[in-house]
Amino acid sequence: MRQVLEKVRPSAAEAAELREVASELLGQLTVLTRPVDPRIRAALYGSASRGTWLRAEKDLDIFLLFPQEYGREALEKVVTDLGARLLEGMEKRYAEHPYVRGYYRGFEVELVPCYDMENPSKLKSAVDRTPFHDRFVREHIKGREDEVRLLKQFLRGIGCYGAEAKVEGVSGYLAELLVIRYGSFKGVLDGVTAWRYGEVLQLRGGKIDKRRFAPSPLIFVDPVDERRNVASAMSLQSFATFSFAAKEYLKGPREEFFFPRARALDREVLATRLGERGTGLLLIAFPRPEVVEDVLYPQLRKASLTLRKILEEEGFRVLDAETAVGITRAGLVLELESLELPPLRIHWGPKVNTSHEDRFLEKYASFEGKLTEPFIKGERWCIYLRRRHTNAEALLAEFLSRRGLEKMGVPRYVALSIDAGYELLVGEGALLNEFLLPLAEYLDPQLPWKR
Amino acid sequence: MRQVLEKVRPSAAEAAELREVASELLGQLTVLTRPVDPRIRAALYGSASRGTWLRAEKDLDIFLLFPQEYGREALEKVVTDLGARLLEGMEKRYAEHPYVRGYYRGFEVELVPCYDMENPSKLKSAVDRTPFHDRFVREHIKGREDEVRLLKQFLRGIGCYGAEAKVEGVSGYLAELLVIRYGSFKGVLDGVTAWRYGEVLQLRGGKIDKRRFAPSPLIFVDPVDERRNVASAMSLQSFATFSFAAKEYLKGPREEFFFPRARALDREVLATRLGERGTGLLLIAFPRPEVVEDVLYPQLRKASLTLRKILEEEGFRVLDAETAVGITRAGLVLELESLELPPLRIHWGPKVNTSHEDRFLEKYASFEGKLTEPFIKGERWCIYLRRRHTNAEALLAEFLSRRGLEKMGVPRYVALSIDAGYELLVGEGALLNEFLLPLAEYLDPQLPWKR
Repeated sequence: MRQVLEKVRPSAAEAAELREVASELLGQLTVLTRPVDPRIRAALYGSASRGTWLRAEKDLDIFLLFPQEYGREALEKVVTDLGARLLEGMEKRYAEHPYVRGYYRGFEVELVPCYDMENPSKLKSAVDRTPFHDRFVREHIKGREDEVRLLKQFLRGIGCYGAEAKVEGVSGYLAELLVIRYGSFKGVLDGVTAWRYGEVLQLRGGKIDKRRFAPSPLIFVDPVDERRNVASAMSLQSFATFSFAAKEYLKGPREEFFFPRARALDREVLATRLGERGTGLLLIAFPRPEVVEDVLYPQLRKASLTLRKILEEEGFRVLDAETAVGITRAGLVLELESLELPPLRIHWGPKVNTSHEDRFLEKYASFEGKLTEPFIKGERWCIYLRRRHTNAEALLAEFLSRRGLEKMGVPRYVALSIDAGYELLVGEGALLNEFLLPLAEYLDPQLPWKR
Repeated sequence: MRQVLEKVRPSAAEAAELREVASELLGQLTVLTRPVDPRIRAALYGSASRGTWLRAEKDLDIFLLFPQEYGREALEKVVTDLGARLLEGMEKRYAEHPYVRGYYRGFEVELVPCYDMENPSKLKSAVDRTPFHDRFVREHIKGREDEVRLLKQFLRGIGCYGAEAKVEGVSGYLAELLVIRYGSFKGVLDGVTAWRYGEVLQLRGGKIDKRRFAPSPLIFVDPVDERRNVASAMSLQSFATFSFAAKEYLKGPREEFFFPRARALDREVLATRLGERGTGLLLIAFPRPEVVEDVLYPQLRKASLTLRKILEEEGFRVLDAETAVGITRAGLVLELESLELPPLRIHWGPKVNTSHEDRFLEKYASFEGKLTEPFIKGERWCIYLRRRHTNAEALLAEFLSRRGLEKMGVPRYVALSIDAGYELLVGEGALLNEFLLPLAEYLDPQLPWKR
């Protein structure tokens, strides 16, 4: 682990640089906010403040704490003005509050407005909790910063670092709390291997009523706000991967857990894999919607599930529905047992001698698409009808060409992008360079530390 | 209905002939049993005794009533001796007791041994109930014999006459009880249209606890033994067909309900139908097992369901599983959405970080038939494996060639017959002349009165 630490712990010079840049920026902010309102305070939070940042990260999370009478628009205006004066390449971003992002002397800076509260139980929004998180971690992490660094890098290596929608894993704050809870990186891993689905953790004693929280593979009660589950963003997938990786690492620790080898991507290999499967692969590719990843990923996932449902309702057997995100394009991936179905489908009607019987029989007395007459099967009416779609591509093409996809389960930005023009690719044709990585992960799944 | 009655009511001469033949046979039996044991009595039961037989039927159900101390073998011996002496073409049959069947002056005679009981609540077997049924019906049916005849012929026409396994419909006794309950043929039909699934009927008043009976679409409490449901053999299919036919008949009475037109059977038409369906039809044909229909039909149905399960467990989609009975051969019919599946199948493993995980991972570490490595999907392990059978015919051929089919869900007589040699026919090849009628009913179902 010494080699790992050397790679993830910033050098003395790097640490000094960060401190110097941060205090210069905080100083500038103090100067600039004084004429606006001397009560506005600027503060450094996040891993830079707590001394738990990774060498590779050059991030500064700066918060501006506003008196509570400020409105949302006033917050936005002040932060935008400050960003524009101090940061290079400033962009506005929107979470619960708007915030700005840009560069300052080579560091990526987020400038986030929040309310200056005395008590975390009366928060106006989630970011208002950050100052309390920061104080709590600083008070408890002293001397264990490197343990946090190891844990974060381990999580990054196994693909579970970050609470954002793309990863649905462990946030930096949760990693710090885990180290506080279990004492060390190794202690955390030991703990994790004993977790069961629905595990409940806390730092204070006392009994917790699990039903107060939404169901989640892990519930970690926030020490600054006991109504909140710090691990609420964690997916089953991340929970399971973290558990298994911890177990494997303890059996045989290797650097690959922290720094997995890059995946070799070979279109020919994937084409062979696809051929062996003998299934029908479909890719709907369209321009990548220009929204933040926390919006993009959930929208793609929802869209993919919608297409799966459309296919399944028509009788196709969908093995899996995935998403693929490239630099300029995004895609929805569907793998079907077969792209073709026979013309015939069974259609069940009402029970015999019940009130809906007459309508059913009337409807199908002269129905064009029937392959048999209605007949009695057990206690129900039944008829064989001609399927509207025997081909999955045709079905999807028809669906995607409809107006108002947004009302049919395809979220807004994905719908807009599909409307602007999509491609429907089949089989090997779907193996576009831009999507080779997600398709490789799908067709040839590999645990990162086993590559 | 007058025309129908003319066809189903025996002429005066026919009725006189039946009475004469029956009393001659009863006389002979009395003479022959006296030296054996003067307590043995012979009696005519069934529709001939009650005056409710149909013109087409030339059946005599003769019962021999034995004192209760007789053992099963003694019963069998006496009946077999009598049958051999009096009947032509005698065969022994086995139900709960053995009985014999043969011809006497052109009538088909069943000679059934039973015990002479005073009270139907202490019966030794189901046939012992017959004398009580007979007495009850004779006491209540007087003057309504023709109503029973109409009902029986109606049931025959719509394919619901008989409680035997082939039909699973309405027995002659139940038809008689229905006429007693509702007063007339028309009254029965009116009643039937109001039936709901699980309908409970009785002739005495008082409340009935439905839970005393096995679930059944119709429960008709036997007036001579209130523990028994006279309609217990009725299938959902017969119940539904009877309900619907009654409703249709009352809307528009036609002779076709009693005497449906014969079905036109045309191999070319069926081949076209099959082509339109675009599905995979399989027929397993084998020598018709030489057992009574009440054994044959249930065994074929069970075998057909077993094959369905075998196919479905391997991933094939079975639209329906039926049986076909010809004169010399019997068959199992399966219709599949497709006869082919892709090589790949998904195999779900245990949850991650649970006790079965190690065994799963060990097993698939060096598994020959895998298409991917094991991977985590949500909370579970998962792997794509190569399917053992991608072709339904090959799968069935392998299964049917195994030894000991009887232990694998194929009942005894069907298994023996398949072992003796079967043919597996596909698509149009399955349209054998011998099975055209059941296949027509499957591919082109028609309600008998709508042909």
